[in-house]
Amino acid sequence: MNTHGTIFKITTFWESHWGALGVVIDGLPSNFEIDLANIAHELGRRKPWQSAITTARKENDENFEILSWVFEGKSTGHPITIIVRNEDQKSQDYENIKDIYRPNHADLTYDLKYGIRDYRGGGRSSGRETVSRVIAWAIAKQYLKEKFWVEIKAFTKQVGEYKAENVNYDFIEKNILRTADEGVAQKMIEYVEKIKNDGDSIGGIIECHIKNSPSWLGEPVFDKVKARLAWSMLSIGWVLGFEYGAWFDTVHLTWKMYNEWFISSPLLQGEENKKNKKDFIHSPHNKYGWILGWITTGEDIIFRVAVKPTSSIYCPQKTVDKYWNEVDFKIEWRHDACILPRVVPVIEAMSAIDILDFVLINNAKK
Amino acid sequence: MNTHGTIFKITTFWESHWGALGVVIDGLPSNFEIDLANIAHELGRRKPWQSAITTARKENDENFEILSWVFEGKSTGHPITIIVRNEDQKSQDYENIKDIYRPNHADLTYDLKYGIRDYRGGGRSSGRETVSRVIAWAIAKQYLKEKFWVEIKAFTKQVGEYKAENVNYDFIEKNILRTADEGVAQKMIEYVEKIKNDGDSIGGIIECHIKNSPSWLGEPVFDKVKARLAWSMLSIGWVLGFEYGAWFDTVHLTWKMYNEWFISSPLLQGEENKKNKKDFIHSPHNKYGWILGWITTGEDIIFRVAVKPTSSIYCPQKTVDKYWNEVDFKIEWRHDACILPRVVPVIEAMSAIDILDFVLINNAKK
Amino acid sequence: MNTHGTIFKITTFWESHWGALGVVIDGLPSNFEIDLANIAHELGRRKPWQSAITTARKENDENFEILSWVFEGKSTGHPITIIVRNEDQKSQDYENIKDIYRPNHADLTYDLKYGIRDYRGGGRSSGRETVSRVIAWAIAKQYLKEKFWVEIKAFTKQVGEYKAENVNYDFIEKNILRTADEGVAQKMIEYVEKIKNDGDSIGGIIECHIKNSPSWLGEPVFDKVKARLAWSMLSIGWVLGFEYGAWFDTVHLTWKMYNEWFISSPLLQGEENKKNKKDFIHSPHNKYGWILGWITTGEDIIFRVAVKPTSSIYCPQKTVDKYWNEVDFKIEWRHDACILPRVVPVIEAMSAIDILDFVLINNAKK
Amino acid sequence: MNTHGTIFKITTFWESHWGALGVVIDGLPSNFEIDLANIAHELGRRKPWQSAITTARKENDENFEILSWVFEGKSTGHPITIIVRNEDQKSQDYENIKDIYRPNHADLTYDLKYGIRDYRGGGRSSGRETVSRVIAWAIAKQYLKEKFWVEIKAFTKQVGEYKAENVNYDFIEKNILRTADEGVAQKMIEYVEKIKNDGDSIGGIIECHIKNSPSWLGEPVFDKVKARLAWSMLSIGWVLGFEYGAWFDTVHLTWKMYNEWFISSPLLQGEENKKNKKDFIHSPHNKYGWILGWITTGEDIIFRVAVKPTSSIYCPQKTVDKYWNEVDFKIEWRHDACILPRVVPVIEAMSAIDILDFVLINNAKK
Repeated sequence: MNTHGTIFKITTFWESHWGALGVVIDGLPSNFEIDLANIAHELGRRKPWQSAITTARKENDENFEILSWVFEGKSTGHPITIIVRNEDQKSQDYENIKDIYRPNHADLTYDLKYGIRDYRGGGRSSGRETVSRVIAWAIAKQYLKEKFWVEIKAFTKQVGEYKAENVNYDFIEKNILRTADEGVAQKMIEYVEKIKNDGDSIGGIIECHIKNSPSWLGEPVFDKVKARLAWSMLSIGWVLGFEYGAWFDTVHLTWKMYNEWFISSPLLQGEENKKNKKDFIHSPHNKYGWILGWITTGEDIIFRVAVKPTSSIYCPQKTVDKYWNEVDFKIEWRHDACILPRVVPVIEAMSAIDILDFVLINNAKK
Repeated sequence: MNTHGTIFKITTFWESHWGALGVVIDGLPSNFEIDLANIAHELGRRKPWQSAITTARKENDENFEILSWVFEGKSTGHPITIIVRNEDQKSQDYENIKDIYRPNHADLTYDLKYGIRDYRGGGRSSGRETVSRVIAWAIAKQYLKEKFWVEIKAFTKQVGEYKAENVNYDFIEKNILRTADEGVAQKMIEYVEKIKNDGDSIGGIIECHIKNSPSWLGEPVFDKVKARLAWSMLSIGWVLGFEYGAWFDTVHLTWKMYNEWFISSPLLQGEENKKNKKDFIHSPHNKYGWILGWITTGEDIIFRVAVKPTSSIYCPQKTVDKYWNEVDFKIEWRHDACILPRVVPVIEAMSAIDILDFVLINNAKK
Repeated sequence: MNTHGTIFKITTFWESHWGALGVVIDGLPSNFEIDLANIAHELGRRKPWQSAITTARKENDENFEILSWVFEGKSTGHPITIIVRNEDQKSQDYENIKDIYRPNHADLTYDLKYGIRDYRGGGRSSGRETVSRVIAWAIAKQYLKEKFWVEIKAFTKQVGEYKAENVNYDFIEKNILRTADEGVAQKMIEYVEKIKNDGDSIGGIIECHIKNSPSWLGEPVFDKVKARLAWSMLSIGWVLGFEYGAWFDTVHLTWKMYNEWFISSPLLQGEENKKNKKDFIHSPHNKYGWILGWITTGEDIIFRVAVKPTSSIYCPQKTVDKYWNEVDFKIEWRHDACILPRVVPVIEAMSAIDILDFVLINNAKK
Repeated sequence: MNTHGTIFKITTFWESHWGALGVVIDGLPSNFEIDLANIAHELGRRKPWQSAITTARKENDENFEILSWVFEGKSTGHPITIIVRNEDQKSQDYENIKDIYRPNHADLTYDLKYGIRDYRGGGRSSGRETVSRVIAWAIAKQYLKEKFWVEIKAFTKQVGEYKAENVNYDFIEKNILRTADEGVAQKMIEYVEKIKNDGDSIGGIIECHIKNSPSWLGEPVFDKVKARLAWSMLSIGWVLGFEYGAWFDTVHLTWKMYNEWFISSPLLQGEENKKNKKDFIHSPHNKYGWILGWITTGEDIIFRVAVKPTSSIYCPQKTVDKYWNEVDFKIEWRHDACILPRVVPVIEAMSAIDILDFVLINNAKK
């Protein structure tokens, strides 16, 4: 159950206190020139200690190591395997958490599901597992971009009551929260700093735009594009909600208010556009990606995910130990007051992995 | 891509104008006594023409037919196959929609993805496809109930601004909207009737409670319970959003406001409860199902889905034909002003199919 | 575990005493014109009572029924479902075998694996299950032939000591044993008749030629063409051995005797052929299909399977009942003295299903 | 297509000139104490340079490295990942084979299937890929042995005309050919040495005994035990034939000669044995593993595979280059005159991987 995908597949692995975490990437078409620099770049976007509001833990994730890869710079059609070494662990004293079931962590459930638990780290339950996905993303992203001009842009849409309304993709990498609205970024950041100073944490909403999505992706029943995206997004630990187009907050609209007609397209007028059906069906509303019958048309796919606050916070808590006694508990290490900017590349990663898989599935039937 | 599941699997099929739709159910443990009456009962809950607010189309879905089944009333360990015959189709005149791409339907995308489209019915893109899932649900539901006392209760949580706050399971089947709050039902229904009289349609939110969920379900990474549920829910055409616990509307809460401690349990006091860890971890908040490290603990799993209005509405629309000319278009047949009560059993169905699959996956590793 | 394939998939079902056996065929590319007559034709080749040496049971398998299928004669991209009704069963008296574990049948193992067994028929353990595969074959065969000129020809290679050495495809359908050598057919048939008169049965060897196999099929490690073919062949109940090229009986040859050089090709001389590498690599030996690195080159793929005698024979046997008492036992019904001619289309079926799946897998990566 | 298995799964990877080959092992039940020494031991059995008749290439396969593994010596329920580093490659001159298509190698087909080929090593087409499988075997073997007392014993059954008739398991590891018959070993070895001195190579037959196989394994249709074993065996490059029980050479026997009755058991007499059905069905013939209805009964499973000679031989050959010109060609490196003793642990490996997967599949349905 550690493999994901149909044709383009990833298999991931990690135990906290062994050599490395990593990913086996299977199904990338052969003879594609891969740029190694993308991997370091994307891992850099995901890593901790990028700013004052994310955790100060140091992980040199860019120091990845290649176990199987390309020939003369090009994919061979065989699995690509890349690992990231575990840092030398300080001989930390784990004795104080060894027998404790931390609230909102896997401690209790791993103990009872598996009968065994490595108390020295989160292992498969840790957000660090997403490093494997980001490596796959770096490759899938490049493939989709060069072959289909696909661009995937995720950004922090909302934190607290602050929302990014005027989306400017160029601004995303220019602010530590990876929001897309220059007008609201400063207030959002100040709000997160205040939460951090309270020893607290906060979640929010990330929005993702898949630009230039290939047309006619998706299978009619169980493997609709929206269904696979929902699966992939919710497979990210921090994500608790998915909506496709604006929905939970527009649920009170009737269909007349929501309906989109082909005719609404401003492009209808030109003879030239009539020839190119993809352009024609463009609509200014794009409420749910103009996916008709759950098959993509080439319009941008827009979805949003709800991200929970990290559950590691700086304040004394009460919990129980494995003998079921009440104990005091305090997390000593640094944490992410707002994890969202680090989740952004993971959202992009899972989107790209799904879209590439759908492209290859479509190829199969031709 | 018409098969879903790992151990407990369903394969579904249908073309509108051939003999039948159906499902092959694979992986049910053998020697389990199945009650045929459940199938008719659940199909009855999903079928059209149950009330004034759902469509008046007549489909005798209870007239299912068994192709492979039990021996002496008990499952044999081999596939169960059940079909529902297509009704005798009136020699309807499809000529007027043959060349039209209806807005928000699969007409355009099927034509361009497959190069062929049966214009005489929606086939795989039709909501009627969910009949297959409800058949599997009737069986999975009985299995989960008898073996694990699991109860799955979905209901209409919100329509327009009307919300079911005081949940009473017994009331669900006593009102045509399948909402769970007696205090709000009448207003909700009147609101839907008004929308119906406008020739319009409306969606809403369905909430689902998985009671007595087996403990320790879920795989740590790609097959978290929440991830599989999100996949299954979004694989239902009408569903556009999924949230696990209250999230999109509580996204502004910080972790301190959200945190749940084991210690919060009112059950902590009793010695008896200390022995039984499952009871102990009960919490009055249950914000996201007390799933720790994405493994279930036995607490109720609560999630919500956002359902779109049906896109068939009674009013003149404009659209395009396959030659890309603008044409007038009007749906003549009856439609569901509010599809939610008919989606309720489908939500329950997909929940049960996933939970049963997770139970069997857990068994495998023992 | 009743679904087979990666992109082109079949799901089969049957319980002896319910309505029908059948198959759901998923993954056939859309817009392909299917000829219904092929199905009846291939079912006719598999059915009992074709001749004096096969069983006299009457099964009208050609009376299949379509549940989902084409539009205007062409595949739609959605599942095709076809069933064959169970014949009206005589109110046969099963009491005499109800509690008996017949030797070499599933009676004992089904009872102990599943805790339940329908003693009124073999169900999933019966060779009748292969009807489902032959239906899929009729469609896959037509697709491979029209798109790639693939021809798949299986025939009875050996019965007793009689071997078909001079292979003439045209003769296969002209003799009741489906052997390919006119010179040996009569002796083979007489030998089988003698065995039949003894109330005995015999197996043999079937050889299968995949002519004009598409090039570059097969995945390097677990899904080599030979591996998938071996799997599929041994998934047929009657088949107990598989060899790829001549092997078990040439196992004593050293590599020098076996080696095939590109240079051996008589086609090497022509300039024209040098341009077309597929032709070039032709070799007169073709010992194991010129599959290099386990990837097909376009040369014919030749393999053989060993088929066991049917275990239903006309003579008194001793066995045990479920209380483990020794009992006398005699099969009253007619049986196949030599099942091989009826297995021939099943061998072809599984070959075509695999080859088509490999073609679609190759497409995916392009 | 580099992942194999249903519940117990392996994913393997390797490119010749990158860091390592390896395997991700998924699905091993948690809390099982694994002995690291088994891995080095089994890799030692597979490695080259074990004797005068196998290749003199030096590969320190025992120097494996663990990337994810156990906690306090026990499996955690999460993936186990183990790699073997590529040895420092001499700056070998590959120029002479860069443009040559070696006969019976993947050179031609990889070039044309993938459009790219690493001429510096066989990569996925190399027998060295089986190192990954042997690592998984070391773990699966220990699990099956400790939980179910399963023993898997493969040995060289035939080389040339020399056959091992008197099987003595204890002798297998005491001779360099891994044959099981002390009486024939010396002659077999001398025969192989003679072939080696001719610069030639030879294959043969390996027989495998699965002792104390768990009962009731196997799925009735596509995933019969014999079918999965055939798949797994033929997925090993060197293997070209599979037979289950004695078949290709007993294909002329009629059923009366072959039939096995429960009653034939010498154990029938004892009252004690009647209570224990597993013992009762023992038969001295065990022609095809007493698998009834293709479900195992607990009797030993016996199968044989035909192994081809290695295609690297010491003698001048002719072949073609990529421009399709005839060229002279000679393999300079050492090769295996008889690969069989090194294939023995790979046969055992794939048997164990399948049997363990079947055990877990059976668990799932309980």
